[in-house]
Amino acid sequence: MTFDIIRSARAILHVTDLEKSRDFYIRGLGFIETEEKDGALYLRGLEEHVHHSLVLKKAEAPVVEVMSYKVRSNEDLDSLAGFYEQNGYRVKWLEEGSQHAVGRAFRVQDVAGLPLEYFAKMETVERMLQRYDLYQGAKVQRIDHFNNMVSDVEKTHDFYMKELGFSCSEYTASEEEKVWASWLHRKPSVHDVAFMNGIGPRLHHIGFWLSDPMSLIHGCDVLAALGYSSSIERGPARHGLSNAFFLYVRDPDGHRIELYNGDYLTSDPDFKPIRWDLNDKRRQTFWGAEAPDCWFNEASTVLDVHTNKPVPTAPAKLKQHKPTFVI
Amino acid sequence: MTFDIIRSARAILHVTDLEKSRDFYIRGLGFIETEEKDGALYLRGLEEHVHHSLVLKKAEAPVVEVMSYKVRSNEDLDSLAGFYEQNGYRVKWLEEGSQHAVGRAFRVQDVAGLPLEYFAKMETVERMLQRYDLYQGAKVQRIDHFNNMVSDVEKTHDFYMKELGFSCSEYTASEEEKVWASWLHRKPSVHDVAFMNGIGPRLHHIGFWLSDPMSLIHGCDVLAALGYSSSIERGPARHGLSNAFFLYVRDPDGHRIELYNGDYLTSDPDFKPIRWDLNDKRRQTFWGAEAPDCWFNEASTVLDVHTNKPVPTAPAKLKQHKPTFVI
Amino acid sequence: MTFDIIRSARAILHVTDLEKSRDFYIRGLGFIETEEKDGALYLRGLEEHVHHSLVLKKAEAPVVEVMSYKVRSNEDLDSLAGFYEQNGYRVKWLEEGSQHAVGRAFRVQDVAGLPLEYFAKMETVERMLQRYDLYQGAKVQRIDHFNNMVSDVEKTHDFYMKELGFSCSEYTASEEEKVWASWLHRKPSVHDVAFMNGIGPRLHHIGFWLSDPMSLIHGCDVLAALGYSSSIERGPARHGLSNAFFLYVRDPDGHRIELYNGDYLTSDPDFKPIRWDLNDKRRQTFWGAEAPDCWFNEASTVLDVHTNKPVPTAPAKLKQHKPTFVI
Amino acid sequence: MTFDIIRSARAILHVTDLEKSRDFYIRGLGFIETEEKDGALYLRGLEEHVHHSLVLKKAEAPVVEVMSYKVRSNEDLDSLAGFYEQNGYRVKWLEEGSQHAVGRAFRVQDVAGLPLEYFAKMETVERMLQRYDLYQGAKVQRIDHFNNMVSDVEKTHDFYMKELGFSCSEYTASEEEKVWASWLHRKPSVHDVAFMNGIGPRLHHIGFWLSDPMSLIHGCDVLAALGYSSSIERGPARHGLSNAFFLYVRDPDGHRIELYNGDYLTSDPDFKPIRWDLNDKRRQTFWGAEAPDCWFNEASTVLDVHTNKPVPTAPAKLKQHKPTFVI
Repeated sequence: MTFDIIRSARAILHVTDLEKSRDFYIRGLGFIETEEKDGALYLRGLEEHVHHSLVLKKAEAPVVEVMSYKVRSNEDLDSLAGFYEQNGYRVKWLEEGSQHAVGRAFRVQDVAGLPLEYFAKMETVERMLQRYDLYQGAKVQRIDHFNNMVSDVEKTHDFYMKELGFSCSEYTASEEEKVWASWLHRKPSVHDVAFMNGIGPRLHHIGFWLSDPMSLIHGCDVLAALGYSSSIERGPARHGLSNAFFLYVRDPDGHRIELYNGDYLTSDPDFKPIRWDLNDKRRQTFWGAEAPDCWFNEASTVLDVHTNKPVPTAPAKLKQHKPTFVI
Repeated sequence: MTFDIIRSARAILHVTDLEKSRDFYIRGLGFIETEEKDGALYLRGLEEHVHHSLVLKKAEAPVVEVMSYKVRSNEDLDSLAGFYEQNGYRVKWLEEGSQHAVGRAFRVQDVAGLPLEYFAKMETVERMLQRYDLYQGAKVQRIDHFNNMVSDVEKTHDFYMKELGFSCSEYTASEEEKVWASWLHRKPSVHDVAFMNGIGPRLHHIGFWLSDPMSLIHGCDVLAALGYSSSIERGPARHGLSNAFFLYVRDPDGHRIELYNGDYLTSDPDFKPIRWDLNDKRRQTFWGAEAPDCWFNEASTVLDVHTNKPVPTAPAKLKQHKPTFVI
Repeated sequence: MTFDIIRSARAILHVTDLEKSRDFYIRGLGFIETEEKDGALYLRGLEEHVHHSLVLKKAEAPVVEVMSYKVRSNEDLDSLAGFYEQNGYRVKWLEEGSQHAVGRAFRVQDVAGLPLEYFAKMETVERMLQRYDLYQGAKVQRIDHFNNMVSDVEKTHDFYMKELGFSCSEYTASEEEKVWASWLHRKPSVHDVAFMNGIGPRLHHIGFWLSDPMSLIHGCDVLAALGYSSSIERGPARHGLSNAFFLYVRDPDGHRIELYNGDYLTSDPDFKPIRWDLNDKRRQTFWGAEAPDCWFNEASTVLDVHTNKPVPTAPAKLKQHKPTFVI
Repeated sequence: MTFDIIRSARAILHVTDLEKSRDFYIRGLGFIETEEKDGALYLRGLEEHVHHSLVLKKAEAPVVEVMSYKVRSNEDLDSLAGFYEQNGYRVKWLEEGSQHAVGRAFRVQDVAGLPLEYFAKMETVERMLQRYDLYQGAKVQRIDHFNNMVSDVEKTHDFYMKELGFSCSEYTASEEEKVWASWLHRKPSVHDVAFMNGIGPRLHHIGFWLSDPMSLIHGCDVLAALGYSSSIERGPARHGLSNAFFLYVRDPDGHRIELYNGDYLTSDPDFKPIRWDLNDKRRQTFWGAEAPDCWFNEASTVLDVHTNKPVPTAPAKLKQHKPTFVI
């Protein structure tokens, strides 16, 4: 019984005003709108050949419904669901047709309490990579990763590594040599998902990949010209960890989006995870500027896949450190 | 009797289809359309606070009506007109109100037979420099220079230097140590106008300034996506002469536009003109690629300011060189 | 019996003058020199954690000794060697210690006559990704792909797809709906290897990846300043096929190197190969400029892995097309 | 009696360790070292044809000796000295030969108490603009401006405008419609000098121009790799005022340097100064991030040109505002 998780594939966020979201994500960040249907915007990046990588659902409160991974085939999907069930997880199936543009899928509350979804099929659409005349704002190319705050990073890290087959590219070690934060991947980039020690489970941000640094700079200018300068929370700057040239923005509902460029190929089995000391200041900001407190403290509430209620959070297991020491 | 010519300021080109021109210049090159009025499009770059720097007039044939320079004041204008008349040039006045958005002006056929215009006033408009949400295509910022083919470069060079007060930043010397091509400026950039040895008088191209090299690269992509790949004639590449990072495109009527970035400050009186040998290959293309023949042979016909008829051309005075030796 | 080929990993080129090569590859292209040993330079890109991705061996004539792929493990290596032998290929083993910095490996002349090598282990070294103070020239980041001219593309394409497990990202179809050129990958980028219809087997170029377009532009400037402007053969421009922003340079011995940026993620099994018509001009140069004849006609001779003699070439199986129709 | 001030031309800073300064300015910022002579480093930017634009003198304490402007000719110099003397300023002449590489000059304590110098001649040297192989770090191209904190901005602004012939490109108006900060130019860029309301006279920073935004991004990476991440004080970001894409760094002695790109042409007499409200947050940081307190409070002490002692400071005349409202 094996399964092949390909990559982080989409998220479903609840937002309170679709028009505000449309303006921010499309004119500001440069997403392509595949369609609006039944109270939800389906968005994709410029190079994506799939129907969407982000769903914004009109709702009362801005929460995270689910984070989805794509697996290789329906056989992988069955195999993975079986694995979860054998390990005591309750799996919720959504059969084909129950979700727009996506094949059969199952959802599960993961080891850290995060709402996950796995699917094998999504409708394909026209890829806009060479429709440069449609490029705008920050020119988002594709989804890259989920970053989550969880209460017990080491336990989560171990589960993803040993049970789900993720590889670790980089990690932060606490003073007690515990895993304080971890960057894990299936596709050979720095990550599909990261976990940081904190009050969790919460979604810290979704990372979207840009093709070059100037798209990020131009994105800042466009966001500011559109009146979103107060939405720019942190950056542009470079992380030591992952080498990302980054910008963090908050969408109109407060969900955090990272615009991201600059990581590297992690295809090789002999690539050894890069260890960063929690006290190494270059880890979080290679260039020196510190992140604002809100970046450390605020994150999106996640839902329970079975009850659709917010998941209660637990404190961080490891000692809380001064915000300036946390990436 | 003195006068202060500030800079190259606008050109009036005749084009055969305003809709085609609009698409090319606005969506492709990123000009702002100030207005369409009486069969003419008035365009400006993103940083320009003046009404326009390019006028595209609907006409039967694609020719150059005039190239205009801005002078400091109406007193400068009178003084300059007087200078031309005293030197035997016939001056044609266009009083205030006779041209849209421009104050009183005069036109004159210059020493090389080129149709020039001088004016002191133009209506000012909202500057779009920080309206990054309106940026598109190659993001043209402002007019930079006129480049002309003329039959007797040295004579023209001398007139502009000695009589009109231009300074020379760079020049190409022929084998006989004649001025084969010359780059002249009033504003402290590399040029407001250049003259090259060739069949003339003809306008070779108008140069528009971009704020950075990535705007030029993105401009290529947008032009191609819009179907204008056959309009890209030469580049992107770098000139040795002027250090310009350049792209030459042909508008729907064949007028040549240079997108231009990378020159330097020429404010100092002790800046010595840089001499290039005609046989120095790095002069025309610092990186090595050769220009296509059409770039050397084709140029826009210019009109007589008095008769509105095409100005007859004369052969180049200096020996014609192989195209690969000409910038 | 299965095997997992990870990616294109290194090439061994014969060059006639190590000092000239060092200057070109290190100062011009920005490679890191891992070491010089026994008449060979071992070079790597800035993000590479392995000992080298390019070996330049001092020799009498500039030929290609071998192109190497990395496999997951020594078991994969044995399995793959077994596969080749069962299919009638003669395998040549190089046991551990026989090659510097590389574990046991085997070589084989592939279906198209190209000299291939497979290995599982290479010494790891310090990664220079964040040693920005050492960045120079074009700032080469990592090896990306091999591009080869072969006489029978379709046969080669089928072997790599069906027998070796490569996936096709893009291809060019001839008028007879034959595969005229093919881009194949193991890592989820556009390619690890490409095959083009032509006189072969020959290596057309090795592609190295840059992290952003401005590194390529700056690389052109540095190459020109170092006197290598005549080494710049084609570009910068964008391919329609693969979306690459590219530059082709010729090293001091004539080997062709592509500097490459701009491709996309190809991880998904539902990604359908993009078909390009051989007569679509945007395929080879999205922006319009044509490639010089030498780009189409010249390529590096490859050696026989058993005899160390040049492999004789055969004509292209499909009709030769005008160079302007060939990527 | 007229005079023509061309541009801000050089500064002389006192530093405590030439080796530390050399490493920072040359490897980090990319200056060219013209020479070290008599305990001073003479530095210039990549496009500068003059001997230097920055002098770093070994001294006990890090202060500002003088800020120098270039005038058109020695006649302008005499005329300008005469003007100062007639207005009651004490002028100190430094005859030719008394300063290395600079012709005769005079120094004066200006209306705000700042140490100024004027000269007409400086030795010229080889321009390195096209020696791209020597480019490193942030690739500083040329000096751009001085920014000073002064106690009475309006008085200073008026003197520079009415008496010295500067033009105002942009300014900040206080709540009482006083000039709170002012950007003034002689060359047609946004500024040669700026004055801000604050404890003064003090030099806030010297601005150096970069040719494109990516040089600034790469400069950050190189500075960090060299261990200077704590020297990066603010940015990269964009100012609303001046449209500058900026980075502020502190040299090893605490002098502040701005790396600067993105301003516009201000050649036209009809360009109206752009007014910014002191409470407009986009004025100081178009993108939203706030500057650190040190950026508002710390500045370099200036010397008296006659006594060589630090000039005492006076409080700001206008109400001190919260740092976040100050550019």
